[in-house]
Amino acid sequence: MTALFDRHHPTLQAALDAAVSRDYWSAYSEIPSGKIYGETARIDGLADYEARLGKPFEIAGHPVEDRVGEEVSPYGSALDISYPAASSDALVMASQAAASQWAAASIDVRIGVCIEALSRLNARSFEMANAVMHTTGQGFAMAFQAGGPHAQDRGLEAVAYAYAEMTRTPAQAIWTKPQGKNDPIVLEKHWRIVPRGISLVIGCNTFPTWNSYPGLFASLATGNTVIVKPHPAAILPLAITVEIIRHVLAEEGFDANAVLLAADAVGSEITKNLVQHPATAIIDYTGSNSFGAWVRANAGRADVYTEEAGVNSIVIGATDNFVGLCDNIAFSLSLYSGQMCTAPQNIFVPRSGIATNEGHKSFDAVTAGIAGAIDSLLSDPARAAGVCGAIANPASVARVSEARSLGRIVRDSAPVEGMGEARTATPLILSVDATAEAAYAEERFGPIAFVVAVDDVAAGVNRAAELSESKGAITAALYETDETSVLAAADRFAKAGVNLSVNLTGGIYVNQSAAFSDFHVTGANPAGNASLTDAAFVANRFRVVMWRRPVAA
Amino acid sequence: MTALFDRHHPTLQAALDAAVSRDYWSAYSEIPSGKIYGETARIDGLADYEARLGKPFEIAGHPVEDRVGEEVSPYGSALDISYPAASSDALVMASQAAASQWAAASIDVRIGVCIEALSRLNARSFEMANAVMHTTGQGFAMAFQAGGPHAQDRGLEAVAYAYAEMTRTPAQAIWTKPQGKNDPIVLEKHWRIVPRGISLVIGCNTFPTWNSYPGLFASLATGNTVIVKPHPAAILPLAITVEIIRHVLAEEGFDANAVLLAADAVGSEITKNLVQHPATAIIDYTGSNSFGAWVRANAGRADVYTEEAGVNSIVIGATDNFVGLCDNIAFSLSLYSGQMCTAPQNIFVPRSGIATNEGHKSFDAVTAGIAGAIDSLLSDPARAAGVCGAIANPASVARVSEARSLGRIVRDSAPVEGMGEARTATPLILSVDATAEAAYAEERFGPIAFVVAVDDVAAGVNRAAELSESKGAITAALYETDETSVLAAADRFAKAGVNLSVNLTGGIYVNQSAAFSDFHVTGANPAGNASLTDAAFVANRFRVVMWRRPVAA
Repeated sequence: MTALFDRHHPTLQAALDAAVSRDYWSAYSEIPSGKIYGETARIDGLADYEARLGKPFEIAGHPVEDRVGEEVSPYGSALDISYPAASSDALVMASQAAASQWAAASIDVRIGVCIEALSRLNARSFEMANAVMHTTGQGFAMAFQAGGPHAQDRGLEAVAYAYAEMTRTPAQAIWTKPQGKNDPIVLEKHWRIVPRGISLVIGCNTFPTWNSYPGLFASLATGNTVIVKPHPAAILPLAITVEIIRHVLAEEGFDANAVLLAADAVGSEITKNLVQHPATAIIDYTGSNSFGAWVRANAGRADVYTEEAGVNSIVIGATDNFVGLCDNIAFSLSLYSGQMCTAPQNIFVPRSGIATNEGHKSFDAVTAGIAGAIDSLLSDPARAAGVCGAIANPASVARVSEARSLGRIVRDSAPVEGMGEARTATPLILSVDATAEAAYAEERFGPIAFVVAVDDVAAGVNRAAELSESKGAITAALYETDETSVLAAADRFAKAGVNLSVNLTGGIYVNQSAAFSDFHVTGANPAGNASLTDAAFVANRFRVVMWRRPVAA
Repeated sequence: MTALFDRHHPTLQAALDAAVSRDYWSAYSEIPSGKIYGETARIDGLADYEARLGKPFEIAGHPVEDRVGEEVSPYGSALDISYPAASSDALVMASQAAASQWAAASIDVRIGVCIEALSRLNARSFEMANAVMHTTGQGFAMAFQAGGPHAQDRGLEAVAYAYAEMTRTPAQAIWTKPQGKNDPIVLEKHWRIVPRGISLVIGCNTFPTWNSYPGLFASLATGNTVIVKPHPAAILPLAITVEIIRHVLAEEGFDANAVLLAADAVGSEITKNLVQHPATAIIDYTGSNSFGAWVRANAGRADVYTEEAGVNSIVIGATDNFVGLCDNIAFSLSLYSGQMCTAPQNIFVPRSGIATNEGHKSFDAVTAGIAGAIDSLLSDPARAAGVCGAIANPASVARVSEARSLGRIVRDSAPVEGMGEARTATPLILSVDATAEAAYAEERFGPIAFVVAVDDVAAGVNRAAELSESKGAITAALYETDETSVLAAADRFAKAGVNLSVNLTGGIYVNQSAAFSDFHVTGANPAGNASLTDAAFVANRFRVVMWRRPVAA
């Protein structure tokens, strides 16, 4: 029964080690290469994806009362896939029917099933890349990485934390209490892991796998049954995920309904029913602050873990690599057209300018440098298409149009050339003063950024930190050459509960969060009430229950 | 600055080791002996307690807008102590003013302060024993153990868990990502612990220190400031606790207001204001289910950890030590007159009787055996006084009177002889049938127990487990000689989320929960939403925040 655990134990151990050292490590290669994934993996994955189109997505043994599915690729065409759908009550009943058996499985068996599922997801990364690309609008390379190996790494990380937490308490122990000159009292004690109940994972449109895998695998590994509720516009990546996990469950003799898909349609979502269902014990949510607030308020006794939205900032004080600064920021703003939860929105620059390796740069020169770097990055249409991808939600395009009046346009947004039917928009850069809070002090999701004139770097840091505290933030960045100022900013952003990147000028971007090293979301500001990737994220997904008795003398 | 940490490091390490092995270990001796605590400790402690009476309890530097205090000993006399009181807003302001400095202290400094405070509390265990005895009604020996060393052990356990969780992530690491033939990307990363904010600890009347120390010390160790809200009838033990911690804080250069006392008066409690205050980030609550439900519903974004009430059961199937069974149950029912959250209320016995080492015993014989064991235990007035103590709340005495009509009286309750003015009551034992749910299926706090006739042991186990699931339970006990039946019961009670003790016939009682080994409360049934004593209890009391930057080549 623990063959899968034995097979994957080296991977588990490496993950546990990496989570302690927090050095670079990855279980699943981020390089979409035939040498790693097999010579035909790319074309096979595309073919597998295309074979899904225009058909019902069948999930053997899954509750089905209806069929739903209206996904349309941001690149243009409808996916025309229909998924099995069922009421919240039907899903909960099926989940509960699968619960006892899954809860009774040993820790090793459950861990083995989870890592085997991740391993199979990894082998299907090219298919997943196409599924993610055509539901989120991400460019192919990003869809491969973020939708495939990076998401799998985050899933494995959750499994590793779950293993560490569950095995912290021994399965049994002998407790010997001295009694002076008399014989000691000796008890045998037995502990077991008891799951919480049904775990509801509410996915988002832009990162359906990356943001869902931590909660999904943390709950599954700790013995809970899981209902995966995808965003109606990005069902396919999670349907494939559920299908693969169910295959492993069934092969290992479990009721596959331990993992269910709660597909629904826009306008008749079942999310609220699932959130409020008394059987729901754990909720993982990624999405807007407004619905996040509703989930938190209406979850009853369920524990709720959220990643909501925020306003991410960059503060520029000084740099010894002005070109590197401009190029790095340009990429961060352009990548997936600013639709990452980690993408910066506001760039605070002293209105008197900054010191650089190229001498003093005025506020306008800094602004022009960043805008020019974006133009340069996106000058090649093929590269622009790969970097920017497409816009997931038409509302984001409308938001870009509306934003044009919010400040002085430094760089206008435009469609990406040569992308045909795709819904695209390059970054809109506006220049405003720090007093124009109505413009920049709220989240404007999409390729919209503000260069904000502040008195000095300290004022920029403080403004950015205040925004983190009031509106939430997942990332912050700083460019500064004075060490005292760097350390002061590190203190201020830590107080605001936001992770800070300093002086990024090379191949690492503020948007990026590395599994086994970077904790994603802190839980310490309104951008989310938990980190997705730490011990606290898994420690409450199970309980420990004991029985004890005297040891016969 | 880390002298305290260095001094107490051996204690910390031993606590960490014990929490892993879960063998017996204790940092603070439970034996109220002059050889351990000093020859004059007992009389000094009494004198220190008596010197508190009839005076204002002064806390230097503590916010004070009013004075409150109407404690009356269950043994008879008024304490006549007045405590500083302040509005919730004044307390929150003082707590916030102390926050930055405490949050900025290193992990080692905070851990050192906490263990030093516990060490000083330990030295004051005799004074604390008198304070606990005369606010809760516990007998002296129990007040010494539960109010002193056992509570201190639980505090130390929380500190140890906090240390383990906070040091799980390194303070810094180098992250090196290979780039094929190119130079690797190298980042330095720095992590720090960020506390959540104000931690509110709401104490109870019966175990003011034991139930408060885990949350208090877990929050303090993780960098939060703490407001301790005692029950109006049991302020003194927590006032002494706050005073001692504040002394250590002040000596180490911290604002003593990092720990505050929120004393209030019956009828004008400030608990709700503190629970609903937006600055409150963590709430630890011990008390009734009804107010617990209010706290959970009204805590806003604060994390809430509760120990509420339940209905604890014993199931008797068979025994090879009938006298030991009767004596053990008699003690569990009599200890502190059934006012422990771990005390059994219902004893399920097959109506056809049980097999014992003395041959078959009918239902009535089992009932008579337990009743007789209580009579025997309490036959000596001095021992009866020590075991039963006094009744904390007059409502419990009234409840005993009302309960007499709920079944056939097997053993009547009576005052404990020779205790003068003290409010006392020995156990009332009623016999009922399993169908009489109106009688036994709700918590009847105090010295009230039911012997419930069931079809067989399996029916008893199931009934007890169902009660755990619907009403909550902190403990369960089973007497059974058939191993298959024992293991089935272990499975059933685990599913109900309740810790089970099997065949206790010697010097260990179902009421007892040992630090570093037994998790207190599971969080898996309505008796509480968390364990007071595990990693999950501390892992969410802080956040981890990072800053990172490229390492210069």
